[in-house]
Amino acid sequence: MTTPWVMFGSSHLFGDFFDLIRDSGGRLSRIVLNVPELPMKGRPKLQARLLRLPYHVEVLDLETFRPAPGEQYVMGFSRAIMAHLVTTLKERFKLQFTPLIHTKAILQYGADVAPGGVVNAGAILGSWAKVGSHAIVNRGANVGHDCMIGAYSFLAPGAVLCSHVKLDENVFVGAGAVVLPDIQVGRDAMIAAGAVVREDVPPGAMVAGVPGRVKKLRGHDL
Amino acid sequence: MTTPWVMFGSSHLFGDFFDLIRDSGGRLSRIVLNVPELPMKGRPKLQARLLRLPYHVEVLDLETFRPAPGEQYVMGFSRAIMAHLVTTLKERFKLQFTPLIHTKAILQYGADVAPGGVVNAGAILGSWAKVGSHAIVNRGANVGHDCMIGAYSFLAPGAVLCSHVKLDENVFVGAGAVVLPDIQVGRDAMIAAGAVVREDVPPGAMVAGVPGRVKKLRGHDL
Amino acid sequence: MTTPWVMFGSSHLFGDFFDLIRDSGGRLSRIVLNVPELPMKGRPKLQARLLRLPYHVEVLDLETFRPAPGEQYVMGFSRAIMAHLVTTLKERFKLQFTPLIHTKAILQYGADVAPGGVVNAGAILGSWAKVGSHAIVNRGANVGHDCMIGAYSFLAPGAVLCSHVKLDENVFVGAGAVVLPDIQVGRDAMIAAGAVVREDVPPGAMVAGVPGRVKKLRGHDL
Repeated sequence: MTTPWVMFGSSHLFGDFFDLIRDSGGRLSRIVLNVPELPMKGRPKLQARLLRLPYHVEVLDLETFRPAPGEQYVMGFSRAIMAHLVTTLKERFKLQFTPLIHTKAILQYGADVAPGGVVNAGAILGSWAKVGSHAIVNRGANVGHDCMIGAYSFLAPGAVLCSHVKLDENVFVGAGAVVLPDIQVGRDAMIAAGAVVREDVPPGAMVAGVPGRVKKLRGHDL
Repeated sequence: MTTPWVMFGSSHLFGDFFDLIRDSGGRLSRIVLNVPELPMKGRPKLQARLLRLPYHVEVLDLETFRPAPGEQYVMGFSRAIMAHLVTTLKERFKLQFTPLIHTKAILQYGADVAPGGVVNAGAILGSWAKVGSHAIVNRGANVGHDCMIGAYSFLAPGAVLCSHVKLDENVFVGAGAVVLPDIQVGRDAMIAAGAVVREDVPPGAMVAGVPGRVKKLRGHDL
Repeated sequence: MTTPWVMFGSSHLFGDFFDLIRDSGGRLSRIVLNVPELPMKGRPKLQARLLRLPYHVEVLDLETFRPAPGEQYVMGFSRAIMAHLVTTLKERFKLQFTPLIHTKAILQYGADVAPGGVVNAGAILGSWAKVGSHAIVNRGANVGHDCMIGAYSFLAPGAVLCSHVKLDENVFVGAGAVVLPDIQVGRDAMIAAGAVVREDVPPGAMVAGVPGRVKKLRGHDL
């Protein structure tokens, strides 16, 4: 008997994850939407997709949610609210998360994904790359050897980290952006799509362009 | 007995497609060059390649071409003249096209390729991405979930579409270009290599740069 | 009985190559570090990794090095000193090199890798692409059909060569850079990360930006 999987997530973001679930052995037993905003209204196409699937779909209510014995938990995230939600779920229900790795991702020697981390199709993790808990490496992103991706960070499709890059927590790397070797990127920083990052990025900064320049620091325009 | 396949194309562009054919089970029985320009002169290297293969090679002549019963038709395209040719072939000979998908492309849950569409090696189609008829997703291109790629459109190698991008018909996306989520690109538009597209693109426009700016509108410089 | 493999390289760069070795059938019998700089000091983490592996590790000493019968030789390179080292090894010991191709690289019809060439995970070689001796196509790099990559050249992760690109010897193409079709790049040229190259590049030049501009010629700023 296989372990049932429970996925938390915003329905807005399930598009990428049905496939991950299927490729993880079809063990998903229920989907818990983490946002009351939409449950069964407003996004009829998505709703129809969800209902067509052989899963129980429910909206998360922290007052009534109950984990079942033997369940494993994965994330179909909504990054903005995820950190708070994950903390609550872990504290209140002692949930243990499991990493979700697409069968068509490539993990090289010694690469590792922490609990709750997600690696999507066609992504490549170089040797000894580490993906932090609840971090996402999306479709076709390319992570160099010995990189460290902090918790809750997000690599958009086609982003490239060269070797020995270190992303702190909650860093966003846009689609097709490139971060050069040995660069350190501070907590909550944001790297725009297509940017080429050649210097360390301070916490909270926003970097854009080729070559990348800091455009904002902790939310203030420069 | 397998169905014989017939490929139409400019010999100039066959480079990418021998492999697709091989990976489609080696069912190709004849190659029909859609341009009289070169048949058996002018490109001796390519000619030699074609002749070395166990296929019947002929130059398309719309007066004498005859479909054989049970044949399936695929495209080894030359985008500029393809639309006219396909229309003629469909009208005159009632040809039915089949999609050509490389065995090392990745199609996520619900992704779909219309008849005559082509997906090359290492390309990734996210969940529910739709590739229109006679559209091409070339080597290593990365298509987000819920994207729609219009008929006759072309994604060059390494192009990245984020999620929910909509390309109208006959759009060209250059190598390594990035189109951000939810962007709509109008008919006949052209996105230059390496461009990062953050705003909707009008029909016929040419967009280049990081961030992408409209450089031409319907062929007129700005 | 399998042929033992011997890998030459700077330990600094082994990160990417353990995996290649494992995927090449685990036939590696010894690792020869080509730089006396570090052998067993200064990089304790890497040293620990090397020692944990079931390989004999030695530092190359050209006076005492002896090839053993039946060994095959592969490169875990340090590009700057590699050309000289390879020449010496070939001349003095008559070493024959073998190409090293990751099992999760994609080689399309007719693609070829010369002795000593390396193709890492997730890289794609289009039809008839040729990788020269001791050239490197790193993680997720994308090489178009009919490209020629000269000896000792290096494609960083996520670099994209369109079709019919010709790189001379010892060319460096940075991460995420794009080279358009039919471009020729001269010997010792360097293309910066994220650059989009639309014109031929003279020998020794450095090109950067979108679109790419020559910034230096043979080491002189412009």
